[in-house]
Amino acid sequence: MKVSTEIAELLSRLEECRQKVDAALDEWMPKENEIPSVLHKAMRYSVFAGGKRLRPFLVLECCKVVGGDEDKALPAACAVEVLHTYTLVHDDLPSMDNDDFRRGKLTCHKVFGEGMAILCGDALQTFAFELLATKLPEQNVSAEVALKCIATLAHAAGSKWLIGGQALDISEQSEGYSDRSPEKVLLIHERKTAALIQACCLIGGLIGNANDDEIESLKNFGYWFGLAFQITDDILDEIGDPEKLGKSVGKDKEQKKLTYPMVFGLEKAKILANEAVERAISSLSIFGDEANLLRALASFVLERKS
Amino acid sequence: MKVSTEIAELLSRLEECRQKVDAALDEWMPKENEIPSVLHKAMRYSVFAGGKRLRPFLVLECCKVVGGDEDKALPAACAVEVLHTYTLVHDDLPSMDNDDFRRGKLTCHKVFGEGMAILCGDALQTFAFELLATKLPEQNVSAEVALKCIATLAHAAGSKWLIGGQALDISEQSEGYSDRSPEKVLLIHERKTAALIQACCLIGGLIGNANDDEIESLKNFGYWFGLAFQITDDILDEIGDPEKLGKSVGKDKEQKKLTYPMVFGLEKAKILANEAVERAISSLSIFGDEANLLRALASFVLERKS
Repeated sequence: MKVSTEIAELLSRLEECRQKVDAALDEWMPKENEIPSVLHKAMRYSVFAGGKRLRPFLVLECCKVVGGDEDKALPAACAVEVLHTYTLVHDDLPSMDNDDFRRGKLTCHKVFGEGMAILCGDALQTFAFELLATKLPEQNVSAEVALKCIATLAHAAGSKWLIGGQALDISEQSEGYSDRSPEKVLLIHERKTAALIQACCLIGGLIGNANDDEIESLKNFGYWFGLAFQITDDILDEIGDPEKLGKSVGKDKEQKKLTYPMVFGLEKAKILANEAVERAISSLSIFGDEANLLRALASFVLERKS
Repeated sequence: MKVSTEIAELLSRLEECRQKVDAALDEWMPKENEIPSVLHKAMRYSVFAGGKRLRPFLVLECCKVVGGDEDKALPAACAVEVLHTYTLVHDDLPSMDNDDFRRGKLTCHKVFGEGMAILCGDALQTFAFELLATKLPEQNVSAEVALKCIATLAHAAGSKWLIGGQALDISEQSEGYSDRSPEKVLLIHERKTAALIQACCLIGGLIGNANDDEIESLKNFGYWFGLAFQITDDILDEIGDPEKLGKSVGKDKEQKKLTYPMVFGLEKAKILANEAVERAISSLSIFGDEANLLRALASFVLERKS
């Protein structure tokens, strides 16, 4: 398959997943007129503010790659996006990153106020776990597998990983980012971004009844792809187009944040992103053509503009 | 059994539960030296700031009342307390209730800063679900029952109930509490407090393999007891002793909050608390002496000083 055809296929598959996930979220999320209406409006505003739905795609695609029925994984695809959205809502708060725009729209707290944005994030996190606990069994996922998905998501999203990465970030910030070592930036990035992306791959694999070798492959793929994704995110903050990104750029530099370009320089950061993509792709060696879209996604991340 | 003996037995059983739950939490929560240390310190600071451990008691006791093995319910008892703690940490934030003291100690954000307190609450919520998903199966609770416990907790803690109550409260606050109807205060109280207390009773029952009638009884008990608990909380804010409560009093009045004494007057609020206790106790009519401690607890709530 030629590279350009693969990219076209990837984009069409991403769009297909996005539509499936958005339709399911629209059906499953509480309606805006349900009490308390303002909270449900804030939740829907945040979840439907756009976004590539990359994490849901990984859940569905990894389920498919191991031979599973991706429709069974739909509640989990929705759950990871809802959980991701909660972290964005809280990240944007004045006491955290203090961002006014996200995905080209005003952030939740700018529209609904700070207190309501905190509650919105809280309720989204709860809803992610509720989706897994109630909707996976309806799709005939066994209770054992549903429970493993919940444990996997909770572990990745918890104090040692995702929220741990945020905590490291804000405590480094309060110390003026004095420790600018490669180890420190990796410690933050693998927590803030790679852990959840890895969990998406694992959850897709679990629902697809992956065997141990397949789980190990998806785990490694998720880690390296997640790291590559965060490094390119850092790079885009330096050289990206704010219009395409839907958010301001140059903020990391201004705040002297710990990013790959800031620690390694832009050129070395690009090389490291490339290496992470290569490792992600080589993690998939036990799979045949069925993993081509995952490989294409990993390569595509180096070209991304948003 | 004489009333005074029952109260003594209740207090001793509450203390026994508190010790069990605190020991388990100490074992299961991430240690302070685990990365990121500051986040884990904030989590432990908040969870071990005291508290009666009323919700864990309800989980353990309701499991026992239906003939279950309460040790199997220990992870769930810990989970509900961790979840309750997260809501307190976020409630106390400047953009919410803006409280400096809780249980006689400085609130989380006063010690660790606002950003870290938000993350601490976030991580505590995740940890509550992680406990249910990983520790219940270790206690030989079936995956089906563990999943039902997760669904029950997520439902009660979510946007339609617990967090919904908070959202109603802050949106009423922003409108100067202009709607002071009995319906509105009930709408908030059954969400903010009764829903989680009811979930504790249900979860205990589920783990104890309660039959449908028993579940129905515990559900009603939890609702009425939860409501009685919140009404007495309102009353204590008007007439309680700040030293015994470990927090300032009179704040609801100052903020013109929607409370039972504010809406109904103090005497009528006391009558309504009494009625709720009576309904809680009569919900237990299908049980014999095995529910005596639940009955004693319900009566005791009217006498509470903290």
